[in-house]
Amino acid sequence: MPRLRLALAQTNPIVGDLAGNSRQILVAARRAHDAGADLLAVGEMALSGYPIEDLASRPSFLHACHDAVIHLAKELQDAGLGDLPVIVGHPDGPFEPRAFGTSNAPTAIAQNCASVLQHGHVKARYAKHHLPNYSVFDEYRIFIPGDELLVLRIKGVDVAVIICEDLWRDGGPVARVLEADAGLLVVINASPFERDKTEVRLPLVTRRAIETDTIVAYVNIVGGQDDLVFDGDSVVVDGAGGILARAPQFDEHLLVLDVEPEAASENPLPDRVQRVELASIERTQGPLAMDVAILPDDREQLWNALVLGLRDYVQKNRFGSVIFGLSGGIDSAVCAALAADALGASAVYCVSLPSRYSSGHSRSDADDLAERVGLNYSVQPIADLVEPFETRLALDGLAAENLQARVRAVVLMGLSNQHGHLVLTTGNKTEIAVGYSTIYGDSAGGFAPIKDVPKTLVWELARWRNEFAVSRGETPPIPDNSISKPPSAELRPDQTDQDSLPPYETLDAILDAYITRALGREDVIALGFDTETVDFVTGLVDRSEWKRRQGAIGPKISGIAFGRDRRLPITYRPTTR
Amino acid sequence: MPRLRLALAQTNPIVGDLAGNSRQILVAARRAHDAGADLLAVGEMALSGYPIEDLASRPSFLHACHDAVIHLAKELQDAGLGDLPVIVGHPDGPFEPRAFGTSNAPTAIAQNCASVLQHGHVKARYAKHHLPNYSVFDEYRIFIPGDELLVLRIKGVDVAVIICEDLWRDGGPVARVLEADAGLLVVINASPFERDKTEVRLPLVTRRAIETDTIVAYVNIVGGQDDLVFDGDSVVVDGAGGILARAPQFDEHLLVLDVEPEAASENPLPDRVQRVELASIERTQGPLAMDVAILPDDREQLWNALVLGLRDYVQKNRFGSVIFGLSGGIDSAVCAALAADALGASAVYCVSLPSRYSSGHSRSDADDLAERVGLNYSVQPIADLVEPFETRLALDGLAAENLQARVRAVVLMGLSNQHGHLVLTTGNKTEIAVGYSTIYGDSAGGFAPIKDVPKTLVWELARWRNEFAVSRGETPPIPDNSISKPPSAELRPDQTDQDSLPPYETLDAILDAYITRALGREDVIALGFDTETVDFVTGLVDRSEWKRRQGAIGPKISGIAFGRDRRLPITYRPTTR
Repeated sequence: MPRLRLALAQTNPIVGDLAGNSRQILVAARRAHDAGADLLAVGEMALSGYPIEDLASRPSFLHACHDAVIHLAKELQDAGLGDLPVIVGHPDGPFEPRAFGTSNAPTAIAQNCASVLQHGHVKARYAKHHLPNYSVFDEYRIFIPGDELLVLRIKGVDVAVIICEDLWRDGGPVARVLEADAGLLVVINASPFERDKTEVRLPLVTRRAIETDTIVAYVNIVGGQDDLVFDGDSVVVDGAGGILARAPQFDEHLLVLDVEPEAASENPLPDRVQRVELASIERTQGPLAMDVAILPDDREQLWNALVLGLRDYVQKNRFGSVIFGLSGGIDSAVCAALAADALGASAVYCVSLPSRYSSGHSRSDADDLAERVGLNYSVQPIADLVEPFETRLALDGLAAENLQARVRAVVLMGLSNQHGHLVLTTGNKTEIAVGYSTIYGDSAGGFAPIKDVPKTLVWELARWRNEFAVSRGETPPIPDNSISKPPSAELRPDQTDQDSLPPYETLDAILDAYITRALGREDVIALGFDTETVDFVTGLVDRSEWKRRQGAIGPKISGIAFGRDRRLPITYRPTTR
Repeated sequence: MPRLRLALAQTNPIVGDLAGNSRQILVAARRAHDAGADLLAVGEMALSGYPIEDLASRPSFLHACHDAVIHLAKELQDAGLGDLPVIVGHPDGPFEPRAFGTSNAPTAIAQNCASVLQHGHVKARYAKHHLPNYSVFDEYRIFIPGDELLVLRIKGVDVAVIICEDLWRDGGPVARVLEADAGLLVVINASPFERDKTEVRLPLVTRRAIETDTIVAYVNIVGGQDDLVFDGDSVVVDGAGGILARAPQFDEHLLVLDVEPEAASENPLPDRVQRVELASIERTQGPLAMDVAILPDDREQLWNALVLGLRDYVQKNRFGSVIFGLSGGIDSAVCAALAADALGASAVYCVSLPSRYSSGHSRSDADDLAERVGLNYSVQPIADLVEPFETRLALDGLAAENLQARVRAVVLMGLSNQHGHLVLTTGNKTEIAVGYSTIYGDSAGGFAPIKDVPKTLVWELARWRNEFAVSRGETPPIPDNSISKPPSAELRPDQTDQDSLPPYETLDAILDAYITRALGREDVIALGFDTETVDFVTGLVDRSEWKRRQGAIGPKISGIAFGRDRRLPITYRPTTR
């Protein structure tokens, strides 16, 4: 059997930064070339970043991407790397719009492509067939589907190339991989992390390897892009389903390995398959170490996803530091630990903003946390800032409670504007689901690190992070008291969250049923929850859609996150739920 | 030729309110029956409201819609209206998910349907073939396409039924209407208003009537639903392209007319056409007056769209009143006139919030407007509320400017929470495009009445509204001084908008090129704008995406509105624009 040295580069692109993203690919190509690779593949849209959303409908953007691919081919050649075939993902266009009859509406003019670069030129191009248009994906909106499979002949091996969703659909290009008798299937991906996704993704890759009787090389991008976190976790699986190599999750990485695919056959090609023969050059190929990363456990994966999502949002948007209120409660404590892990404690600014209703422990727990984590910390009591509004406008009840949260936001935003920190908002998914927050108050901020983390999981992650610190001989960042005390918004005397809400275990279970599993009222009740609680909770969820629409983005880690993953009307008068 | 009395009901549904929407249809059916109609059609999704977005992925919602159609058929029968065939739009399901291979992602389980009700039963059902997935539409995300055309035989006439986008696409069901030799084509629609859309829509209807050699009856829903305003404007066009009847824009209406379509032929049906014969009963049909509404001019159409969008958002979400800051400037003045037209002046609460930088005219112009419009008006000077923050936090420059806007928001939100008014935010499209606003400050509010109105159009509409008042012998609502004075945010001494921004005529022209026409930097410059200004403006637009994501919704009136019409990343580092 022929032998190929295969390199997969897990790069971390920024949407739009064609020059920077190209440099990442060039660096990977240099390393792959040095390692004697016969072929390098980078992820889907590694050149442009992903998702590009409606940038795909701007001709100037598509022209720039098209030109950047040609430019990258030349740069590779100029750098002496021209003999290495590089498969790179990028948008291409503009093409004639997909025919939509007489509609004058904007329509797709782009394709989601994989180009093969060698010797200073684009040797071949594949366009994605299957365009995901569910969950966070809007690809049917922006792309024209391709309809021809690409097979590269390299060193006597037929290498089929497809893109992400193409692997997930039965039929289509995957079926033709088998018909074309390819020895290696390269799949370039931009597949975002969500909890337990690897338990679907890896078996799929394995199944396809067995079905198509090929070695499958799955390469994914890595990094945070707005509300998505791409986890890398690139993997190569042989035709019997065994893992040959695996890149680490959440890190840039170059995976290099030797594979021994079936030699190319001389059978006639099936319909709609284009075969391109690439020049192969003998290289010096030294020995390689096995490179099979071990996936960490569930909570560590989640923590790492949140850290990377936050870090990349801050850094890619060129902020140097973050600021947020530290209440002594669990949400802001977990955000502080995440922010310190993401950016280093010296880039984290926290403010304790006690009101006249704040307990002693809210100050002391915040002090304790600040000391443990080593972050920048100050105290701004708000009572004398609140009082003039309350008196002048005669506010009481909920209006007076919200006022305190809004005065805190004015303080944090003032400090942000004056000193250039990004404001984080520390609300969790449970709170956001039921609207248990003050709009323009505690919900104010540019990024919400735990937006997709239900309250019960916030506690679980806090405990895990402390145990993790202990296991490494470090100080646990989160005060035990912040974990164990009853949660409170402290907006009126002796308030606790459970004055207004069911116990969090119940609440999170109902929310999981109603939101993630999309069960109706009757089916949620049938799970064993009482009718009154279910009606109360689902009513809160539906009525707070307007707040969520104005909420900050935050990293998706669940099957259904708030945002473009779950699109619902604000104006909604349910007859039934 | 046979004669049919046709009724088209332009109803105003609320998303989710199956009982209320059914009542509207029942009322229309009673009136159509009384008028001797042989057939009634209501709009696309008139039963559920439109767009339903991801409600389409909840089995409980689909079951409720399915049941509501059956219930409506029974109610029509019980009300003695059973002999009148009623074509009603609704979602149906849940069906087996569209096959997506091995993906475990949520996928479409619903269809976008037209059901035909008669004698207490659902006699036939059509599912929309073409699913718009561009602009504000996400139908490919949520619906399974249909593939069979429906033809009803009523009183010797073959009546084809299709839904909205089906009419816009060449081929598909429209082509089969001609093959099936139908005499009448009923198209049910949920087609939102945008400026100049009628100049595309009416010619399309006319063209299809000529192409298919049928009378085309186009019925649209009416009303505001979040950021969309459905304009009604239902119309019937004969096979020669002449308008037989037309319903008014922006109003609920029942259009009744007699048509004389070709008699049904006995030719064999083409493939994928289902024909259903309906019982026809002789009715007493008195004479009918011609009903051809005249479309008002462009500015009146725009004003009416904004009024209806605001009124329906407020009323459908059960607010009794609105509140916002009155600065004396043109934006808040136009919002006040719109709100008074939408809700009556007694439901409009305005607050003048002068700071130490506010000019004398800002107070006097606001006073003048309040008096002209007759709205509820109070004054809350903010200097002493601002000062404690400014001093304590040592804020200056932009941080101090933003502080004033945020203190105003705290006042308005406090009054909103205390008294139950909906807060409006009065920013215009130009401001929102370039981020010339303070987040959690003047951008705070639940609804943005002029969100999609560029600054130059705000002035134009103000002048039009005043002229309109004069033409009716009424007091012009907007003070001349608010129209003629140089715009200023008044956040520092002697500030005007043009300290920070190009002249509004230039700015709006660049924004139209960059946003609406999606031109790249080079092409915008080629229109004759100077490079520095183009780079400055397009840079501002790209950098303020994060603010827009947290902005209030407001009625879409243009080809590309901010929101789901234009989906762009926040994290974006453009190599080129």
